[in-house]
Amino acid sequence: MLVDKVKNIEEKNLDNGQDIKKTGIRVLISEKDGAPNFRLRYFTVQPGGHTPWHKHDWEHENYFVKGRGILVTEDKEIEVGPEMFSYVAPGELHQFKNPYDEPFEFLCLIPVPKK
Amino acid sequence: MLVDKVKNIEEKNLDNGQDIKKTGIRVLISEKDGAPNFRLRYFTVQPGGHTPWHKHDWEHENYFVKGRGILVTEDKEIEVGPEMFSYVAPGELHQFKNPYDEPFEFLCLIPVPKK
Repeated sequence: MLVDKVKNIEEKNLDNGQDIKKTGIRVLISEKDGAPNFRLRYFTVQPGGHTPWHKHDWEHENYFVKGRGILVTEDKEIEVGPEMFSYVAPGELHQFKNPYDEPFEFLCLIPVPKK
Repeated sequence: MLVDKVKNIEEKNLDNGQDIKKTGIRVLISEKDGAPNFRLRYFTVQPGGHTPWHKHDWEHENYFVKGRGILVTEDKEIEVGPEMFSYVAPGELHQFKNPYDEPFEFLCLIPVPKK
């Protein structure tokens, strides 16, 4: 049993000066905690920041916690925020960006990689 | 790609007059949406309600969204609320209950059952 506050988990800065800007990640639950199947991760995208425009072989399940952001897909841009969720299927191009004035915070779950 | 609001998903009442009281579930994402690995579920426990005191072979990954509640474990009771998360490992006895005056709302993720 693990119970904690998000703020107690150290945030790692993902900004690489290229395709990821002003974005941090907190890994709340993962296989390091014994979780066998999926990782609970908490992202914060600061104003003007974004995650990469990319795709991969695994899915995302997202829940939006604070602030607002834009989920960019191949054919549209969707504003997302609290009390909303999204599912990004394996292979779908996607990006999260924050053109607003407040931090955009959301959960992004992925499966534990199969060995 | 699926994007929606929690309130657009129909809530199913789980109250069975026995071990589950005043508790509803919304399945936000599951294998019905094509999600291959885990289900994103949204629980609301009304004041005076609770989930069952039980254990099972799969894990929970929880994020607490609104209100406050109590996570009951074999050796203690832990108050949980917004900006907190929990991991309940396979086989651990647990219960969520709401002795407070406001609805207690949280995410509870489980793996998709293996066939």
